[in-house]
Amino acid sequence: MQPLPSTNPWDEDDGFHEECGVFGVWNASDAAALTALGLHALQHRGQEASGVVALTDPGSEKGVFNAHRGLGLVGDIFGDAKVMAGLKGRAAVGHNRYATTGETALRNVQPLYADFEFGGLAVAHNGNLTNATALKRALVRRGCLFQSTTDSEVFVHLIAISLYANVVDRLIDALKQVQGAYSLIALHHGALIGARDPLGVRPLVLGRLPEGAMVLASETCALDIVGAEFVRDIEPGEIVVIDDSGLRSINPFGRQQSRFCIFEYIYFARPDSVMEGTPVYGVRKSIGAELARESHVEADVIVPVPDSGVPAAMGYAAESGIPFELGIIRNHYVGRTFIEPTDQIRNLGVKLKHSANRPMIEGRRVILVDDSIVRGTTSKKIVEMVRQAGAKEVHMRISSPPTTHPCFYGIDTPEREKLLAANHDVEEMARIIGADSLAFISLDGLYRALGHARRESGAPQYCDACFTGDYAIPLTDLVGHPERVPALLAANGQ
Amino acid sequence: MQPLPSTNPWDEDDGFHEECGVFGVWNASDAAALTALGLHALQHRGQEASGVVALTDPGSEKGVFNAHRGLGLVGDIFGDAKVMAGLKGRAAVGHNRYATTGETALRNVQPLYADFEFGGLAVAHNGNLTNATALKRALVRRGCLFQSTTDSEVFVHLIAISLYANVVDRLIDALKQVQGAYSLIALHHGALIGARDPLGVRPLVLGRLPEGAMVLASETCALDIVGAEFVRDIEPGEIVVIDDSGLRSINPFGRQQSRFCIFEYIYFARPDSVMEGTPVYGVRKSIGAELARESHVEADVIVPVPDSGVPAAMGYAAESGIPFELGIIRNHYVGRTFIEPTDQIRNLGVKLKHSANRPMIEGRRVILVDDSIVRGTTSKKIVEMVRQAGAKEVHMRISSPPTTHPCFYGIDTPEREKLLAANHDVEEMARIIGADSLAFISLDGLYRALGHARRESGAPQYCDACFTGDYAIPLTDLVGHPERVPALLAANGQ
Amino acid sequence: MQPLPSTNPWDEDDGFHEECGVFGVWNASDAAALTALGLHALQHRGQEASGVVALTDPGSEKGVFNAHRGLGLVGDIFGDAKVMAGLKGRAAVGHNRYATTGETALRNVQPLYADFEFGGLAVAHNGNLTNATALKRALVRRGCLFQSTTDSEVFVHLIAISLYANVVDRLIDALKQVQGAYSLIALHHGALIGARDPLGVRPLVLGRLPEGAMVLASETCALDIVGAEFVRDIEPGEIVVIDDSGLRSINPFGRQQSRFCIFEYIYFARPDSVMEGTPVYGVRKSIGAELARESHVEADVIVPVPDSGVPAAMGYAAESGIPFELGIIRNHYVGRTFIEPTDQIRNLGVKLKHSANRPMIEGRRVILVDDSIVRGTTSKKIVEMVRQAGAKEVHMRISSPPTTHPCFYGIDTPEREKLLAANHDVEEMARIIGADSLAFISLDGLYRALGHARRESGAPQYCDACFTGDYAIPLTDLVGHPERVPALLAANGQ
Amino acid sequence: MQPLPSTNPWDEDDGFHEECGVFGVWNASDAAALTALGLHALQHRGQEASGVVALTDPGSEKGVFNAHRGLGLVGDIFGDAKVMAGLKGRAAVGHNRYATTGETALRNVQPLYADFEFGGLAVAHNGNLTNATALKRALVRRGCLFQSTTDSEVFVHLIAISLYANVVDRLIDALKQVQGAYSLIALHHGALIGARDPLGVRPLVLGRLPEGAMVLASETCALDIVGAEFVRDIEPGEIVVIDDSGLRSINPFGRQQSRFCIFEYIYFARPDSVMEGTPVYGVRKSIGAELARESHVEADVIVPVPDSGVPAAMGYAAESGIPFELGIIRNHYVGRTFIEPTDQIRNLGVKLKHSANRPMIEGRRVILVDDSIVRGTTSKKIVEMVRQAGAKEVHMRISSPPTTHPCFYGIDTPEREKLLAANHDVEEMARIIGADSLAFISLDGLYRALGHARRESGAPQYCDACFTGDYAIPLTDLVGHPERVPALLAANGQ
Repeated sequence: MQPLPSTNPWDEDDGFHEECGVFGVWNASDAAALTALGLHALQHRGQEASGVVALTDPGSEKGVFNAHRGLGLVGDIFGDAKVMAGLKGRAAVGHNRYATTGETALRNVQPLYADFEFGGLAVAHNGNLTNATALKRALVRRGCLFQSTTDSEVFVHLIAISLYANVVDRLIDALKQVQGAYSLIALHHGALIGARDPLGVRPLVLGRLPEGAMVLASETCALDIVGAEFVRDIEPGEIVVIDDSGLRSINPFGRQQSRFCIFEYIYFARPDSVMEGTPVYGVRKSIGAELARESHVEADVIVPVPDSGVPAAMGYAAESGIPFELGIIRNHYVGRTFIEPTDQIRNLGVKLKHSANRPMIEGRRVILVDDSIVRGTTSKKIVEMVRQAGAKEVHMRISSPPTTHPCFYGIDTPEREKLLAANHDVEEMARIIGADSLAFISLDGLYRALGHARRESGAPQYCDACFTGDYAIPLTDLVGHPERVPALLAANGQ
Repeated sequence: MQPLPSTNPWDEDDGFHEECGVFGVWNASDAAALTALGLHALQHRGQEASGVVALTDPGSEKGVFNAHRGLGLVGDIFGDAKVMAGLKGRAAVGHNRYATTGETALRNVQPLYADFEFGGLAVAHNGNLTNATALKRALVRRGCLFQSTTDSEVFVHLIAISLYANVVDRLIDALKQVQGAYSLIALHHGALIGARDPLGVRPLVLGRLPEGAMVLASETCALDIVGAEFVRDIEPGEIVVIDDSGLRSINPFGRQQSRFCIFEYIYFARPDSVMEGTPVYGVRKSIGAELARESHVEADVIVPVPDSGVPAAMGYAAESGIPFELGIIRNHYVGRTFIEPTDQIRNLGVKLKHSANRPMIEGRRVILVDDSIVRGTTSKKIVEMVRQAGAKEVHMRISSPPTTHPCFYGIDTPEREKLLAANHDVEEMARIIGADSLAFISLDGLYRALGHARRESGAPQYCDACFTGDYAIPLTDLVGHPERVPALLAANGQ
Repeated sequence: MQPLPSTNPWDEDDGFHEECGVFGVWNASDAAALTALGLHALQHRGQEASGVVALTDPGSEKGVFNAHRGLGLVGDIFGDAKVMAGLKGRAAVGHNRYATTGETALRNVQPLYADFEFGGLAVAHNGNLTNATALKRALVRRGCLFQSTTDSEVFVHLIAISLYANVVDRLIDALKQVQGAYSLIALHHGALIGARDPLGVRPLVLGRLPEGAMVLASETCALDIVGAEFVRDIEPGEIVVIDDSGLRSINPFGRQQSRFCIFEYIYFARPDSVMEGTPVYGVRKSIGAELARESHVEADVIVPVPDSGVPAAMGYAAESGIPFELGIIRNHYVGRTFIEPTDQIRNLGVKLKHSANRPMIEGRRVILVDDSIVRGTTSKKIVEMVRQAGAKEVHMRISSPPTTHPCFYGIDTPEREKLLAANHDVEEMARIIGADSLAFISLDGLYRALGHARRESGAPQYCDACFTGDYAIPLTDLVGHPERVPALLAANGQ
Repeated sequence: MQPLPSTNPWDEDDGFHEECGVFGVWNASDAAALTALGLHALQHRGQEASGVVALTDPGSEKGVFNAHRGLGLVGDIFGDAKVMAGLKGRAAVGHNRYATTGETALRNVQPLYADFEFGGLAVAHNGNLTNATALKRALVRRGCLFQSTTDSEVFVHLIAISLYANVVDRLIDALKQVQGAYSLIALHHGALIGARDPLGVRPLVLGRLPEGAMVLASETCALDIVGAEFVRDIEPGEIVVIDDSGLRSINPFGRQQSRFCIFEYIYFARPDSVMEGTPVYGVRKSIGAELARESHVEADVIVPVPDSGVPAAMGYAAESGIPFELGIIRNHYVGRTFIEPTDQIRNLGVKLKHSANRPMIEGRRVILVDDSIVRGTTSKKIVEMVRQAGAKEVHMRISSPPTTHPCFYGIDTPEREKLLAANHDVEEMARIIGADSLAFISLDGLYRALGHARRESGAPQYCDACFTGDYAIPLTDLVGHPERVPALLAANGQ
């Protein structure tokens, strides 16, 4: 899916955006309600649009698809009893995403749905295809008409034109043609299908409801909210077909070493999720402790940049013995828009999302802990705010290595020239954001916190391309677009 | 103002609701934008509607009033550049409140505005009048027509019918007739006026912008966001008149001992605000420490009920030496509505706002720290959720004394029969909410944390009626409505 | 009520606007639905906003008022089954009016409603008070707060402050203080009340439903749609009180000669209404015949300017023997807005509402028949359009005398300097609108068509102030505003 | 296009619905505004949705397409200056249609737009394909994904998969595969293309703006509104390609005798349009005169059922010598919805669109003239209404022959079993609608009024299938659906 620009002129958040959460359930009563709840728990993965497609009579050709989608939060889109009453069905698939406003955008809201020769199919897709543009060009040449601007529609056309008779064979046929990092959930009258890219970059988990119905979701927190028991992660490259006879697993790509997205642990996933067997919250605290060991500095107080910096700051405080305080308060009531700042307002350095808790900061040496630095604009404002509140010293500690490379695997990052760490060394960065000192966790420290070496038995363990430029999946669409290609690509032989 | 019911059938929050935040500024450029920002910082005091009235040419009779109000969050109401462009003026007053949806409610959104013989007047009011019904009856008998259902309109009519020539004299005339707990800010072409009730129950602070313009606001956090310096609290019973010649203070009621609302410290105020000279965040941590001393119990982990329980839990953890962990994650993406739960969904015990961070809880003895218990329904769900996540023991610690009495001074509390602590002793309450143990801070402990005795030199220091039934302001409208009168009233001679 | 400007930049209609239709019913099932239907039949009297207030249990103090109002057409405002379900009651009063968009305007939409000492009262008012400004000034001085900008609210305040105990006495008290031309319908728990100004300028009729329930309405066409039988016109200055014991008539002003608005016959009323005993359609045809006798000209075809010019054109054609043809087609699909015309579009002389039926016009001598000329801009465009369609000659015939004076009695007319006939003689007007000849019916001819002399037994029979400047009701609010006073006023001693 | 049901439970109109108007312009300034105006003039051909696609730089590959579509009237959809400002371009194509509300319907609103290998293409289509279902089935089998439920999308897919390189060749390729009655206008960067089905059933005319730009439209009334001169009708089966080098005409189907839709003259077309050289208004009057000659009856007054019955009634009156009067008034203020009628309201026989002008009817023998009888429900209500208004006799005269067969060529008609004339003879019909007598014009009389024989030189002149069952275009999609096939089909060898 394409990144979509924020329309909020006040937007202080120059961070990363996870793109999309997916959820599916087969043969349970209230399937659409369960899906809406699951999407609610996955709201942090996409807050701007959601959709649910439900299916009556799963397993029977009589099944009817009912759909609803909208712009906004899950609670608002599915808060109308009439909407829910219309989403009849015992199976469902849902999707959260970013979207701009208006009609044009609405057609991009997933799940995508199409009528095929074999019946209807709804597809919810999290991730990014790296050869979508090339595929789209070929499909248009063949006479395919594209209705959305999401690369997810490429899947749908590939399925439509596949010569295989069976929907699962068609899906495999399509997956073999695409490159990229993705998880997807598809629903047709005969089965709920889950699929994960061959390297397992994007997450997808399997759960089971008390009465036995199977659930697929991006994260375990979505299992928790519906009371589903965690069964296992879907394997890299695995396709699971859930129907009334149970679950069937297909591995069309053969076994491959997983290269799960390391940034899910640092920032994207919800802290109460467990990913690939490891609790996210615990990893974040361990990173904080590692960071304290690597880059200790004398100070009076550890202050997290809320909310994402909190666990690392707790780990840092515990390891360093310096007190942890909520020295920055987050305002959670930021709507979708806010007034255009005038010059005067801009000069006030007004921040809508954060405010300094002055009594905790005034006259103190402060260590700020945050998860990452992207463009550096937010860090600069935060440091400035903490200084205005009277801090004697401001030291910034970051619970990820420097982000030097854009992500092409499903995370919305700016182009390389806008990544502060791609263009400046750490000292320069400290000066730019105005901190007395700045330190990032080392790549090794990060892997230590995760309990792994970077390579084990010669095999890389995670996708860490945003820190290393080690892009494990070909970037086909970038060929011929050198302006979008990170400098290291050639060097890396990719 | 009247309490308004939540329309969210999923609403898990059975807590208190602060009612209203107010903000005003005199003779500053971008007055409406500053006011919208101030209201944004005060959003926690009322999230359902907001309004701003701006005045061009303050100090001149040529001034024109421009107004905008709406239902929803400040950012959404004032996010339209055209709206802000229409709010021309160098003085402004604004208001946040609760409101139901629809047109009927819109007429209740403040600031109220009316044309008087002396010109226009906009009034923003935080608090509650305890003789509003009696006054309204008399005013209607006299021929006054009421357009809203807020008791704030009583002020406006009293000003309208006052026989004094001058707007300040009319306002004093009105204030002398009302009983209650309130702060108000009024704007007319000649001045910005602030007033606080004689006991100073509701807060109001004075600030100064860098270029010297005066600002009034409910809390200091609203001064911080606009870059205003804190000057002082408005005194109990004080009226301040801000015009181009500066600030004039009037004390029509004489000096009285302040009885500031003690619950502002425990729950209502934003943690980064400083109230009556005392930082709110620090008080909360002290209460937590006091609570640990009073009601220690063996446990493995301290878990706050987010967000309001966090500082007290930190204080508790520091005092007790038991580790503090984010064992409950709050979902901040709860919109205004959500799907009607079916029975099946209800049986899942689904919680929209909170989820357990299972790895931090499983197999552990957990101390939950929360700020208060109102009906007990939320506490029950939270305890249940923590047990389902595998806690071995669940001990609940509350950073306020038992809430035994409703508030009639501006906070939306349920009637007495719905207050758990009004009808059950602590042991019964523990059983009802399902906790292994339950403890509240003592009233003395609370005062200790605040650094005061309950009475000093014989004078009570705070309004603590919700814990004690000691209602310091007459409850005139309750006379003849015994069903609304708390049982203790008679006993207390009120 | 105040005239409100059109927001349609394409607006070709520079004609008169009737202001408001009213409807009321007492003690019938489906009272709100009947009222919505009545308002639909009266839609020509006000197309921009409507409201209905219904009352359960009419005749009992237990009755509850339910209200709904909105901007737009009756069918759209009351087209929602939920809205109608909410308007429970066996009595109702409704109102059509003009209104601008947005919230500010909504508070002006009638019926106005207020809570009084004696209970609730809803008031729907058609017409204009000529001393409203003076009364409002006095009421504000007394402490009354105005919420709308309609002069109708003056009634409500006068009722509120009246010292009489009984609502009917209070209403009479109020009516005795106001000057103007109006019909009003009021509903309180004890009765439905109708009132007409002492000269009976604005219409109000009484009907009876098959089961006996009484109905009040502006025109008989609203009785027809609900199947009510016409009973009689309400008399000038009469107040009718309809309650469960029947109908009581009060004449607080004594009998006066009616001076019914003559323009209702010419243009405002719906052609199928019968006013003061005379069918409107028949009058219009008679005017056309009179006009043919007075101002015959050789021609090939009579073409009405649709829709209002059709009956007069038919009468003209029948009298003159020249064929009647629909040479101009009206487009009824004109919504509330349309694109801003660019210069190029403007030069095309595009007309949204009318188009020439070229085959009926080309090469012919055409007599156009229209009801009035106000500013002349529409007539000019129509003549131009007919010439462009190839007419050899264009003669304009108008079924009213020249409109030389504004109306202050409830019709939205432009100021005097914008009335073409106030500033130009007929020959100049013909030249301005581009017609080969122009003729208006004479005042005597108009009275002949109505079957009356202008004065009978010395008494004037109609209000014809727009043609004569003979303003029968004092224009109090104009005193001191000479710019609004027509030149003839002084001459007429008013 | 498919017929879409009315959502108005009050809908009294059981008549025919024309389906769609189209408009296009090449290389003119304000192209989108001209198109919106043209659509406004064609509003009678589709009132529920409209769209415009504009193209900057027509003739250049740099051209950018801008689009806007919406539900409602043209004036409301294009009434926003920002919308029009966004529709930049010097070429445009637009479409009016029926549509239900909501998002699902929006995707059906034309012009359809798609990106092809050769660039973008916008298509506006009026009419109906009779093999759309069969084609769609084959296209889906091939892997085409359908996004709308209109048969117009079949065109777009056929163009997309065509193997020809050139867009015009692809369009011809597509047209050769479809069967049906249609006019279409397509716009791509190189040309504006118009096409009419081989029999010319649906209309399409060519015009020229003063500066020379070419215009295509469904009817001449759309040329008139933009000041374009009528050039000629597009020929049956003709394709016109308008680009910067002028107009090129292609006749891929060879010359065929036109079989223009005879119902356009009777009802669909606007009376001021000229179709195939014949003025519509004149035809209608001639039909009325023919009808008077064929089915004279003694009466006092001729009353048209407005608005469509007016010209025929005038012709009838002129021929018969009986006076013509507007005995039924039409209420033009009917919005899109209205209150659900309760039983009581239903029993009142309430009519929202028509009301009797009682003084013209009471005590008289009335001849009603209407254009057609479809289900008969409207005629029944009208006759009833006229009787209730006191008519002594009611004779119904219809300006078309009995409608015995549904239209499959672009007009929304009910199935055969709902057509009153398909199931009853004229006497029964008279009894059903409650008229004292009923007569239709004969087929021969209709052709006489048009100045043609039914067959000239052996060739049929018009499509009159709705009266005769003589379906000139194969009804492929009906094969296998006998329930939809009119009984006469087999008999007619079709």
